[in-house]
Amino acid sequence: MKKYNVAICGATGAVGETMLKVLKERNFPVEKLKLFASYKSKGRKYKFLNQDIFVEELTKDSFKDTEIALFSIGAGLSKEFAPIAVENGATVIDNSSAFRMDKNVPLIIPEVNPEDVSWHNGIIANPNCSTLIMVVAINPIHKISRIKRIVTSTYQAVSGTGRKAIEELKKQSRAVLDGEKVTSKVYPVQIAFNVLPHIEDFYDNGYTKEEMKMVHETHKIMGDNSIRITATTVRVPVFTSHSLSVNLELESKLTKEEVRDILSKAPGLKVMDDPENLIYPTTLNSSGNDLVYVGRIREDDSVENGLNLWIVSDQLRKGAATNAIQIAEILIEKNLV
Amino acid sequence: MKKYNVAICGATGAVGETMLKVLKERNFPVEKLKLFASYKSKGRKYKFLNQDIFVEELTKDSFKDTEIALFSIGAGLSKEFAPIAVENGATVIDNSSAFRMDKNVPLIIPEVNPEDVSWHNGIIANPNCSTLIMVVAINPIHKISRIKRIVTSTYQAVSGTGRKAIEELKKQSRAVLDGEKVTSKVYPVQIAFNVLPHIEDFYDNGYTKEEMKMVHETHKIMGDNSIRITATTVRVPVFTSHSLSVNLELESKLTKEEVRDILSKAPGLKVMDDPENLIYPTTLNSSGNDLVYVGRIREDDSVENGLNLWIVSDQLRKGAATNAIQIAEILIEKNLV
Repeated sequence: MKKYNVAICGATGAVGETMLKVLKERNFPVEKLKLFASYKSKGRKYKFLNQDIFVEELTKDSFKDTEIALFSIGAGLSKEFAPIAVENGATVIDNSSAFRMDKNVPLIIPEVNPEDVSWHNGIIANPNCSTLIMVVAINPIHKISRIKRIVTSTYQAVSGTGRKAIEELKKQSRAVLDGEKVTSKVYPVQIAFNVLPHIEDFYDNGYTKEEMKMVHETHKIMGDNSIRITATTVRVPVFTSHSLSVNLELESKLTKEEVRDILSKAPGLKVMDDPENLIYPTTLNSSGNDLVYVGRIREDDSVENGLNLWIVSDQLRKGAATNAIQIAEILIEKNLV
Repeated sequence: MKKYNVAICGATGAVGETMLKVLKERNFPVEKLKLFASYKSKGRKYKFLNQDIFVEELTKDSFKDTEIALFSIGAGLSKEFAPIAVENGATVIDNSSAFRMDKNVPLIIPEVNPEDVSWHNGIIANPNCSTLIMVVAINPIHKISRIKRIVTSTYQAVSGTGRKAIEELKKQSRAVLDGEKVTSKVYPVQIAFNVLPHIEDFYDNGYTKEEMKMVHETHKIMGDNSIRITATTVRVPVFTSHSLSVNLELESKLTKEEVRDILSKAPGLKVMDDPENLIYPTTLNSSGNDLVYVGRIREDDSVENGLNLWIVSDQLRKGAATNAIQIAEILIEKNLV
């Protein structure tokens, strides 16, 4: 079986390190692995298959013999380096928002639209984590009964912001417990024992970028711009895994038993929905693994064919690293790399 | 000015202690104050207006000369003791769910339906905290443009469960930070750095009691059963103040500027809505005071005349103790006690 030269760009970040872990776990066919990050992280050492790999500085010359480049370096750097990687013959799977809405770039969830990889031009985009987690859970329902409208409120973990936010939550939590002064650097307001209705920058219409990603990316991935969507995205003091409260309005009635059945058979999902026995998903179930968990499945009679769902998944894994590597696996399977 | 003999039943609980604090702050016309709790708390000492008041055990004989009884003792005990207090001539303001849906008991938010106190028969019910906080913010909108449907997801503080839950969150948070084993006693699942889509018991339809309270109590307080409502109530690792993401469908269009204007002029509310300058309410703004804060006001074009709001308030104060004492003030004002 052919093996591939793989590069992780942004290797020292929360998603980058998870990519390294997931490559190992899935036994990805790696010939040679290169780890890139900014100058600051140069020389940092990681283990991969009994080899020491030292982080190199990401430069224009980084992609000489890369076949698959996994990017998690933020939109600005992705825009700069992805075209260079492609010129050098690499296929880029980019975790930033840089190319997601680009008409020439497929936006892929392997469980939802794997066929879209076929029209890639060197770059494939990995969706926004909250969008990705939601769409894995709602797409199987949409296939049976078209979704007309989505109202979602999110409960997002700080690791979505990155390693510094994890440290801030730890530090602030300890300060609150010890009755000491709390300082905020990563977030504009204290996140420890608080809830912030603010993820990413605000647009003029009052929505945040994160909220509008959930609208536009869902349309693109599901290939259906007629689904009406509104989102309120909220940061909660949780380290890992995003939770979503999702209200759907369907074209035709599905009972909660039918929804449970549909979701139980769908790929990448685990139904945890037995409230009488206190079974519903929380971040403790999802953190560290690749499934999207669904529970609290309830018919909503406040609207015709309404449905409520509670969706939880590890946004560093299925919401980012694992999804990117699953895309790479499809590329290999279809000889598209 | 006449002064009244007041009793706080459940005086040692999180809400009971807040009631004592609010009586002092508002300079409530207290002639004699009695504090009741269970046998366990008997003899505990509180200060009120330079007097030491010792907690007495709540018994059938507790209400001999009580005029106003503030109850926060849970539904079971309220059902037992409220009729006894009324027989003894007291007017009961009950914070439990025991009488809220009783047709002979008014369910009051002073900013919303103060006129309903007039038909009380000795007992007046204080609404569920999440419902109360939501209704203070949405009722002024409803008066201008009828609300057709509400979809809400909540972010509720542990002090809503009581003092033991506050201790559990502290203890578990420290254990997680120290890498030690976490044990859960109050909640079925760890609450520290986690999110639980579960508040109160589950009904057969999959909804919790808390979620159905938000439906039925909203109808009763607003006097409009035609409003369609669905709720997902969620516990978050926050000590005090509930936050709510609320999506409304209105009968006629209101712009976000119009909504800001309506809410700015409404009683008991504070609008904090200037996202460009990072101004939106969080629990840090509300905790310790009596206002309901509203921000993230956004028109929602996923439905005709849609609107999104972010609502935050201290559920021990406006959501419980302060509201009960405001009701008592109305009773006095209207000579109904």
